[in-house]
This record gives sequence, C-alpha cells and structure tokens, in this order.
Amino acid sequence: MSKPKGFEKPTGVKDYLPHAVTKLRRIERNVLACMHRWGYEQIMTPTIEYYDTVGVASATSDQKLFKLLNHRGTTIVLRSDVTAPIARVASSLLKETPFPLRLSYHANVFRAFEEEGGREAEFFQTGVELVGDASPEADAEVIALAIASLQAAGVPEFKIAVGHVGFLNGLFEETLPGRAGAQESLKACLLQRDHVGYRDILRSLSLEEPIRSELEGILRLRGGQEVCDQALRLSGNDAAHLAIRHLCDLWDVLGAYGVQEHVLIDLTMIGDFSYYTGMTFEGYAAHLGFPVVSGGRYDNLLAQFGRPAPATGFALKTTRILEVVEDEAEANGTTLILYAEPSRIAALAEAGKRREAGESVVTEAVRTAEERGAVEALLQTKANRAKNGEPLVYQGRRYDGLVAFGIGEGEEA
Amino acid sequence: MSKPKGFEKPTGVKDYLPHAVTKLRRIERNVLACMHRWGYEQIMTPTIEYYDTVGVASATSDQKLFKLLNHRGTTIVLRSDVTAPIARVASSLLKETPFPLRLSYHANVFRAFEEEGGREAEFFQTGVELVGDASPEADAEVIALAIASLQAAGVPEFKIAVGHVGFLNGLFEETLPGRAGAQESLKACLLQRDHVGYRDILRSLSLEEPIRSELEGILRLRGGQEVCDQALRLSGNDAAHLAIRHLCDLWDVLGAYGVQEHVLIDLTMIGDFSYYTGMTFEGYAAHLGFPVVSGGRYDNLLAQFGRPAPATGFALKTTRILEVVEDEAEANGTTLILYAEPSRIAALAEAGKRREAGESVVTEAVRTAEERGAVEALLQTKANRAKNGEPLVYQGRRYDGLVAFGIGEGEEA
Repeated sequence: MSKPKGFEKPTGVKDYLPHAVTKLRRIERNVLACMHRWGYEQIMTPTIEYYDTVGVASATSDQKLFKLLNHRGTTIVLRSDVTAPIARVASSLLKETPFPLRLSYHANVFRAFEEEGGREAEFFQTGVELVGDASPEADAEVIALAIASLQAAGVPEFKIAVGHVGFLNGLFEETLPGRAGAQESLKACLLQRDHVGYRDILRSLSLEEPIRSELEGILRLRGGQEVCDQALRLSGNDAAHLAIRHLCDLWDVLGAYGVQEHVLIDLTMIGDFSYYTGMTFEGYAAHLGFPVVSGGRYDNLLAQFGRPAPATGFALKTTRILEVVEDEAEANGTTLILYAEPSRIAALAEAGKRREAGESVVTEAVRTAEERGAVEALLQTKANRAKNGEPLVYQGRRYDGLVAFGIGEGEEA
Repeated sequence: MSKPKGFEKPTGVKDYLPHAVTKLRRIERNVLACMHRWGYEQIMTPTIEYYDTVGVASATSDQKLFKLLNHRGTTIVLRSDVTAPIARVASSLLKETPFPLRLSYHANVFRAFEEEGGREAEFFQTGVELVGDASPEADAEVIALAIASLQAAGVPEFKIAVGHVGFLNGLFEETLPGRAGAQESLKACLLQRDHVGYRDILRSLSLEEPIRSELEGILRLRGGQEVCDQALRLSGNDAAHLAIRHLCDLWDVLGAYGVQEHVLIDLTMIGDFSYYTGMTFEGYAAHLGFPVVSGGRYDNLLAQFGRPAPATGFALKTTRILEVVEDEAEANGTTLILYAEPSRIAALAEAGKRREAGESVVTEAVRTAEERGAVEALLQTKANRAKNGEPLVYQGRRYDGLVAFGIGEGEEA
C-alpha cells in the first residue's frame, strides 16, 4: 500500500480524547475498587509474551494473534487476553502462594486481522481469575462479582446467561455418537445463536425420534431453576447430568447472593473460548448486540504452565461498556488565572494556593495589547455572564472561573 | 534458540505483583491528579502506530523500535514515547481545538534490543505536553509541574538540571566552524556526562587560546543565575546569546513559582532526544544513577504532522520512580468470612453488607472435617491473637479480620 499520511494511525485502534478518558478511567477505577472489596488483588503482566507459551495457550485463534520476531528470532505476541498470562504467573512468580488465588486486572489486549468491519485491534478488559477452587461456590462468586462489577461500572440494565460446556458435549455424545462433523456444525450454530441454521442442520441429519426432538428441545432450555429440572429429564448421559447438577448448585448459591434476578440459565450457550471446561457465561446489556462480559471455568489451562489447578473467571469488555454508560457531570471545572508580567508572582502564588486546595487552575500571561483588550472585555461582562449562566471563553476555550492580576480596574484574587 | 519454557516471559519485561501494582497505581493516580490541577487533560493513544509516521518522528533510534508487519505489509511500531503520538493527535482529532493545548498521559512504552544488560523493553511514563506556546513562561510551567509531579509521586529528594541545545550548538558553531565531526564527538561526551573524555578530545584538537579555555570553561557552567551571566560573557554567538536570554527569563519565572531551590542551570546538558530544539531538562533523585524525569522544547515536531507549532513537555520515568518511593501502609486489610453450608445465606449477606460499606471481604465455604477443625482452632485463639497483635492465617494467607458462620460455639457476625 502507499505510505501512510502523517496524521494517520493503524486502522482498528483508537485515540481517546479527554472526555472519553475521564469516563474510561471512572469505569476502571470503580470496577477495580469493587473487585478489591471482594478480596481480589490487582496484578499487571507485560504487553508482549512468547508465542510458544502464552500465545498458544490463549483462546485466540492463531491468525488473530499479533506476532512479531525478536532479534533472536523467537516469535513474540501482543497479549490477546490476560487469563493465559495470569496462568503463567500463578505457575512461576506465585508458585509458592497457596490456592485459592484471587487476582484482578485492567489491561489492553490485541487482535490482528480485525481491522476490517470496524472491529477493534486493541481494546480494554477488566477482569478477575479465581484459581484453585473447583466448587460451584467459586463459579457463583465470579458470576456475582461480574454482576457487582457491571453495576459498579454503571451499566444500567443487563442479563447474565449461564451455560455449561459439559451439558452440550454430553448430550451430543449421547445422541450423535462418533459424528464429530455433525456435532461441530450444531455447536457452531449455537455459538452464533443461529437457531434457524441449527434446525436446518437437524433436519438434514434425518434423525429418528426421540433424538430429533431432544436436540431441538434444548433450544427452549432458557430460564431459571425449572430449566435444570427439564434438562435432567432430557438427557441420560452421565457427563450431561454432572454438568446440570453443578449448575443447580451454582443457582442455589446465586440465590444466597440475592442475584438470581440478573441471571438466566441458557443451556444452548457455548463460551467462545476454547479453554472453557465447565460453566460459561455471558452478560448482555440492553440495546447492545454483543456481550459486555464473558467468563467461565477453565480447569485445564494451568497444567500447561506446570501447576495444574481448577480456575474460573471473567473479563468485562470495558471498551464496549464505555458505549452504554451515561456521562457523569464533571466534578469541578477549571479556573483561568490571567496576569500581566509585573503581577506574575502574585498570580502564580494564587494558582499554587488553589491547586493545593484541589482546584484545577490554568495560568496564562497576557502579553499583547490585543490579548489585554480581550481580557478587559471579559472582565467587564464577567458578573453578567455568571448571572446568566453563560460560559467564560478565552482564546476559544471554556473556563468555569476567571481571576486576573494586573489587568482591568479592580484586581481580583 | 530453543523453545521457551511454559513459565518464561520475554526478557526485558516484567510482571507486577499486587504489592508493586498498589504502589505503581498510587503514583499514577497522584501524578495524574496533580497534572489535572494544573489544567492538563488526560488523553490515551494506541499502543501501535505506523512506522512511517510516529515511528520515524519519534526520538528513538531505528534499531530500538519494536517493529512488526500488519497483514497489508505496512510496518507498525509499538510506541516508544507518547510525544510523537500526541503531535499526531494535535494535528488530526484536535486540529480544530485552539492552542495552547495542555495534555497529560500515563502509558507504557517500548524499546527493542534492550533485553540485555537488565534494561527494560517495556516501561511506564507519565507526562504532559504544552502545545502552542513558545514563551519562557511555558517552559517554566512544565518544569514547575515536573517538580510538583515528582513531589506528588513521593520522590523524597531530587534536583532538576536545565540546559539549552541552542547554547551548545551556537558555541560549537562559533568555536569549531565547519568541524562537524569534532562537534559531534564533544556532544557525545556531554550526553554521556563523560568530562574526562571531553577534555581528552579538546586536547587532541590542538585548539588555540581562548577557544580551548572557552570550550573547557563550559564544564563549570552549573549553578543558578550566575551561570547565565558567565555564559553571556563566554560566547559571542547570536544563537548562544538568544538561548541564554531564554534561560534567564525562564529562571525568573521559576522564581515566581518558588521552585528555584530544586533547579540547577547546567549548560553542558544535552537532552537525549533528537527532536529537542530549545530548553531541555533532566531530574535526578538522590541515590539513583539515572534520570527520573526528562523533558524539553520541541518546536519542529508538530510540523511533521501538518500543524506547525512550538511545544514543550516532559515524561516522568514512572517505572524508575517506583524504586525510590517509600511503601505506604495499606489503608485497610481484608476480612475473611468462613461459613458452613447451612449458614451460607447469612454469611454472604454479611459479606455484601461489609462490601457496601467499603470493606474488603473474602468468603470461603468450609466443607471438610479438616477445614472445620482448622477454623475452630483459629476461632479459639482469635481473641488472644488479636491481643498479641499476631496475624490471622488461614490456608497460608494472612487476614486482618475473621468472622465465622455456622462453625464453632458462638456464631459471630
């Protein structure tokens, strides 16, 4: 392609201007504080990792990894999630720290080849990992914390859908034994939430009853406690039964947390990460077509780093949450202190005093006759402007307060 | 090389465990809040940029840039500073926003080929850019803000050395006209602060008096106001004189800010960034061999992005500051709530209540007889431990409070 122009940046990445940064930082701060109240301690891992370790272990498909070679010829990736790096840390720096580990993070992650179609190549995630606890209580804790985190972020309305990869795997193994291709096509439809396609494939498989209606029936397995009961009747497979029992226990613990109203059991749900081994969940906000949080249990990942352990966790899609969260009124505005050179000491001292008191202050020297005229005009109308709620504008920028030193009649301080 | 082991990460990058993250986050928060009080608004730019734009414009030498190819064959770099990206934003997204722009950032930046010798390939910088103001007041503002930022970060003792690239360029042009090689060697020595090497080169040039003593005399040009006076006498070159006059004015404004005690004029100082065009400065903390802040004026950078403007700014070396800042006592510890299953609802409700009040709480279900025994023993000694100031340890982890539900004699809440 032709050389990029000076003002261009790679497609798929963003600049965040002050207004957006204020909002993003507020979400980050509130969510991390929430995670801290649940006993999760924050860690940071590097932006770059080895392809052969974290790159391969991550759930991101190979062609979506950002790769580069270091000068020794080793392939490096830009991290595509923080779950695999945390598994590495749990097995190295933290290997003497007893389980359970409760860790939180806020980080940018990367996807190559997502430059087209408006998808983002770099975006923020805020999440937790609970490592070393296989119980339904641990899964319920991360779901309840995901709900608390979405509330802390300010997401007004959302629903969490919970499924279990063991149920679908068990059911498909029972009803379509050895037919890997058919199983994969059906799962692909469920992952895309394409129920029409799922029914089409079912028809094309010319299955006998009751297999066909069993497989079609799962599309209706969405709801509360009653879904667990229905699912137990639907499948006789042991793995599927174990999965359902785990979900029933999890549902009870969610009741003890008082958060069942935010949760829906959805047995058609497949987590989109290949490393999930048990419960998976996704959270949807009103009026948004994509999840704002996703998580699940991954009991085989840590073994790849040399310290086998069950684990469960989630990541908020913080960049997407930015779109559904209301703007907050700015806490306090900026005061402009203008001064003529002979009054510099008094002006800068006043600025220092106000900054120490927590006020945001900009200082500007007034040098030219033109600038001086503009300041004098502004000072004359200042009282009227304040009365009418009109903004103070100087050199094209809006301020919430104005103090002048050595300009105009009455010096103000 | 051989395949990296599972627990390995690329050399030159770091994992930050919770203790270090707490400290790093505190520095980040306090410094950004300080910059906000000076009217600087925070922006965020992407981790990746085009090599042909930001990569070339940055002050980092080509072989130290982390490069990768995107799928279109365009060369991408991991940002090596945030000054060049901000120049890009000032010329694109912010091109209608009037000068002066006051922008702040906190970001990780990258250096390739620094993996050896313990140097870091990824590290944090926290900085500001003041764009569109060529005055000594602007230079003094960023130096005074650098001082306030180091204080906000908690750096106990530091000194800022201020120089001017125009002085050395002017002096060398006057004393060594046309001898580019000799000029470069002398500058290289100054950049490395190698005064012995500088004198050796001077000797080897067999210069006549008073040229030789003039060039040797600059090594003594370190101090306050008096240095400006000496420098004015030392060189008759116009550019050198202009530079010195600018520094004298800057020194006056620093006096108005009341911060001269932290500053040293050092005319041998050369900023290590090729884009500096005027005043440059570096800040040194006690007991640290490398600068904790560096900055300067770069009046030609924005033109490369299509919106010519003078600019000045600095970056704190936040990762290094981490090493000189004291640990702070943790604000409040974590309470452990243990429960037997029948008491789950009461236990989780108590946890919820405490979290709402801002407390950090971990909950654990007690399942096995062994766990139950450990909890009962802990409860029996709890009062004594608290009296003796001994920590509460459960499953190898230390807590600052303990509440049990459904275990032990008297249920506590």
